Amino acid sequence: MQEASRTWRAAGKRIGLVPTMGSLHEGHLSLMRIAREQADVRVVSHFVNPTQFGPDEDFDRYPRNFDRDRDLCREESVDVIFYPSREEMYPEGHSVYVADDRLSAVLEGVHRPGHFRGVLTVVAKLFHAVLPDFAVFGRKDAQQLLLIRRMVRDLNFPVEIVSGPTVREPDGLALSSRNAYLTPRERLEALSLSRALREAKRMYDEGERDANLLRAVLRENLSRAEGARTEYAEIVEVDTLTPPDRLQRPALAVLAVHIGNTRLIDNMVLAEGDFEL
Amino acid sequence: MQEASRTWRAAGKRIGLVPTMGSLHEGHLSLMRIAREQADVRVVSHFVNPTQFGPDEDFDRYPRNFDRDRDLCREESVDVIFYPSREEMYPEGHSVYVADDRLSAVLEGVHRPGHFRGVLTVVAKLFHAVLPDFAVFGRKDAQQLLLIRRMVRDLNFPVEIVSGPTVREPDGLALSSRNAYLTPRERLEALSLSRALREAKRMYDEGERDANLLRAVLRENLSRAEGARTEYAEIVEVDTLTPPDRLQRPALAVLAVHIGNTRLIDNMVLAEGDFEL
Repeated sequence: MQEASRTWRAAGKRIGLVPTMGSLHEGHLSLMRIAREQADVRVVSHFVNPTQFGPDEDFDRYPRNFDRDRDLCREESVDVIFYPSREEMYPEGHSVYVADDRLSAVLEGVHRPGHFRGVLTVVAKLFHAVLPDFAVFGRKDAQQLLLIRRMVRDLNFPVEIVSGPTVREPDGLALSSRNAYLTPRERLEALSLSRALREAKRMYDEGERDANLLRAVLRENLSRAEGARTEYAEIVEVDTLTPPDRLQRPALAVLAVHIGNTRLIDNMVLAEGDFEL
Repeated sequence: MQEASRTWRAAGKRIGLVPTMGSLHEGHLSLMRIAREQADVRVVSHFVNPTQFGPDEDFDRYPRNFDRDRDLCREESVDVIFYPSREEMYPEGHSVYVADDRLSAVLEGVHRPGHFRGVLTVVAKLFHAVLPDFAVFGRKDAQQLLLIRRMVRDLNFPVEIVSGPTVREPDGLALSSRNAYLTPRERLEALSLSRALREAKRMYDEGERDANLLRAVLRENLSRAEGARTEYAEIVEVDTLTPPDRLQRPALAVLAVHIGNTRLIDNMVLAEGDFEL
């Protein structure tokens, strides 16, 4: 992969990378279209990264279907699928990792200890293997996106980070590979996430700046969904991921909710003008 | 720096980096000569990295003399001195780092907690800023060299690691910027390090393979020096840095010794044939 990328770079070609764990859906495809517009060579990496799953999480049952994913990549004019083995990504005796001690200490980081260390480490490995000019990440995983931007800044990675919007079903549910776990009944209950976020955003757009009140609105909305168990529902500033009292800078409404055995996350930006994560 | 390196790379030039903390001596210059032979563009980085010093260590008094270092670089045909500020290397709110949880847990890592996290983090930043084809490190800092090789392997850094031999004074003292701290009397006591290592190596070369005996020889030699306080003196295998009972694979005799207020380290390879670290 490195050799191929070096050849393309020497020929002046611009390389775009879309990192994925496979199980591709319209959200991933939308990121591939962003890469297609801006890159001469479009690379999709396809690797279910074991180190970002906790011991009690769904690594073993995470949906995998390489043949289907390959066909979808072909349809989106992807040039290369980088599909490493676990042993290539984590050689025997591996011991070096990338981590963060600030942005990863909150929200997802509290409930999934070690998750972001796994994410940053695998993204660093992928960046070095693929040597992209830019990489595209979805805003659905907002904290991940912010942490990757922070990693790129702090470690001087020569990679531009581009973000793509969250893709939703017509009824509002954010696309996720984990939606495949939902029963029809849970699928309905899962609408509580986007409903709560939309309600908070509507109030923000109408002028509400009391973060505690907006957070209460999120929680109250989620509490109405019978099969939903809220893990967190917060209003945080985007640059620090900490909760303010009043919203004076761009913020995120973020939540993680268990629907049955399935853990879903979602978020919406609360900001004036056309702020993008 | 990145932009300049990209231009050189696009022109097919090979970039060699010698990372230093300044206070250059013949050891650094020998690494620059290695870079000169193999590179079209020779870069020396010059940065006293605060994160690899412990709170009670010598960051504040570490010898600094940029003008002298610049003149030495000129004499060695260095093309670029990369001389970043602390704020450029560690921007406000920095939180992402590189660390290791195996090779850094022993020897220096025990006595300088956080040291190798600082080293790996700054080397990752420097690699991304300078984008070298290869980087040259001295074998005097053997554990550092092995950790950087591990980082390059584990994180897929597209950088080749080249090592240069320890340069010694005629009487055996390994060159170090910290030798400047020694009084004339301490300078004599500091010879105990290389003397102990040479004695262990002589016995190894004569066939001794009992690691415990060789370690005892190191310690016994050091204990004879009056002003020397041994922090550690070990025989370890080079690939794991753990002590074997019998030497069957390449090993290192390594030690850290306080001479007065000055902490010195040194090592020698114990291996058959022409093994190089």
